[in-house]
Amino acid sequence: MAKPDLIAIDWGTTRLRAWLVGEDGAIVDTNAADDGIMHVAPGGFPETLRRHVGAWMAAFPAAPVVMAGMVGSRNGWVEAPYVPCPTDVAGLASTLARVDIGNGRTASIVPGLSYRDPSGSPDVVRGEETKLAGCGLSDGTVVMPGTHCKWARLEAGRIAGFTTFMTGEIFGALKDHTILGRLAEEPADDAGFARGLAAARRPGGLTHQLFSTRSSVLLGDMTGREVLPFLSGLLIATEVDNGLALCSPDAEIVVVAEGHYAAAYAAALLDRGRAHRILAPDTVFVAGLRAIAAAAARHA
Amino acid sequence: MAKPDLIAIDWGTTRLRAWLVGEDGAIVDTNAADDGIMHVAPGGFPETLRRHVGAWMAAFPAAPVVMAGMVGSRNGWVEAPYVPCPTDVAGLASTLARVDIGNGRTASIVPGLSYRDPSGSPDVVRGEETKLAGCGLSDGTVVMPGTHCKWARLEAGRIAGFTTFMTGEIFGALKDHTILGRLAEEPADDAGFARGLAAARRPGGLTHQLFSTRSSVLLGDMTGREVLPFLSGLLIATEVDNGLALCSPDAEIVVVAEGHYAAAYAAALLDRGRAHRILAPDTVFVAGLRAIAAAAARHA
Repeated sequence: MAKPDLIAIDWGTTRLRAWLVGEDGAIVDTNAADDGIMHVAPGGFPETLRRHVGAWMAAFPAAPVVMAGMVGSRNGWVEAPYVPCPTDVAGLASTLARVDIGNGRTASIVPGLSYRDPSGSPDVVRGEETKLAGCGLSDGTVVMPGTHCKWARLEAGRIAGFTTFMTGEIFGALKDHTILGRLAEEPADDAGFARGLAAARRPGGLTHQLFSTRSSVLLGDMTGREVLPFLSGLLIATEVDNGLALCSPDAEIVVVAEGHYAAAYAAALLDRGRAHRILAPDTVFVAGLRAIAAAAARHA
Repeated sequence: MAKPDLIAIDWGTTRLRAWLVGEDGAIVDTNAADDGIMHVAPGGFPETLRRHVGAWMAAFPAAPVVMAGMVGSRNGWVEAPYVPCPTDVAGLASTLARVDIGNGRTASIVPGLSYRDPSGSPDVVRGEETKLAGCGLSDGTVVMPGTHCKWARLEAGRIAGFTTFMTGEIFGALKDHTILGRLAEEPADDAGFARGLAAARRPGGLTHQLFSTRSSVLLGDMTGREVLPFLSGLLIATEVDNGLALCSPDAEIVVVAEGHYAAAYAAALLDRGRAHRILAPDTVFVAGLRAIAAAAARHA
């Protein structure tokens, strides 16, 4: 077994996940818990970290501890900066935030990214910069679905810019807090998803097509079981159409997702005639922290 | 004083409002209460109606009682049909639903409208058909802001079609149930509204520009006090841009609104270079019921 030389941590709003990584990149051990930053009391970050990875830290005192995600946000352990795009792995590695974890040891927190598009509209990410560092793509577009889906453009090994779409959170708000969600019936009928993909091409824009859900059910065009898949397809296709408009027509497309997200974005991209590769989020996250840690070691 | 010859009722989800109308169209008396259809027990519609307009009915036994709004929906007194577009005042008047209100008297409920656009996407309205009948426009576009904003196209005195935008309900869901609402601070700074109008023109589409609210606050570009006016401006301008794309470039535009809605839509339309007239909702509603009642009397 390769000797462990990295303790990698994805510390988000609701979850903490940790990987003990060998010098060849293999995963030696893993750990996960519902100890996201929203569950950590003020001043409680060092103790929470030790509870989850203290044994690894003791066993491998030379292994760097590198964290990414909302742990570096204003509500996290310490606010790590946003590095402006364009930047690259070296740019991230030279801007790591440091926190004291006892016994003269420090842990690093990867900074987020900021970007201002040509129209002046700003954007931010935190956590996805690490996936970008680990996806092994030099040129192309990386799609990272989630509550706030990120589309990043890579050019000659650099992160040129990115665009966030609130697809996941808007779906949740529509489902739980509007008249549309009240039309929905279980179990879901996936035929609604393809209908949603088609609806995104129709005139009137998103806020009209959303209402067409209600009109369709009232007029007997759609069943309640199709409603949630329809909303999902409509929102994802709207995002995909807007995202594709921002990248070159022949850009290679990589989707970092698994399970339901991977299937839904793959279907939407194929519906729009776009081939793509799908990479597993955990794999690219650990590879990204590894690349950033290696660049930081060279930089030090 | 002109002799009253119409009892006009706007019976919506949350409110019941009634007007006693003179033969010259003047308002003789009014009445309003929180007795919308969601507050009426099963079978309770006749009694609720009598409580509010029973005195008028007794005093003017020949005056027709005409209602419009959600009272004609599936959850109302009786389900009035949707009349397909294109149609006109005569089409509405010939499709009135009738309900027994005692003593051999009936009341009428105005039907809603349905429409299927050239792409096949369906739409429905209930209540706004009455405003369209009362706005005195033969050709042009009528904008009726609200929870579900309606844009209707009139051609040669007929209602050719319409498009619903969920602007108001989506604003509420974003404000009360997403991360964007949690960024908002009081008192509101109206400078955010003009910034929202501008943001709707930027690349990436609505679900990206919504997230730019958060990025702007995190990067110090926007204050919390600008957040809600920004969201309002962004959503209304998105609707106005999509609505204008569906009507001819020289269409006369009439906005049926008052107060905050009237000011917001006027600002958005002027920002897009479109002159318009603003009409008061109650005035056009009563005029519409009067026109429909007159057409029904000719029809009978």
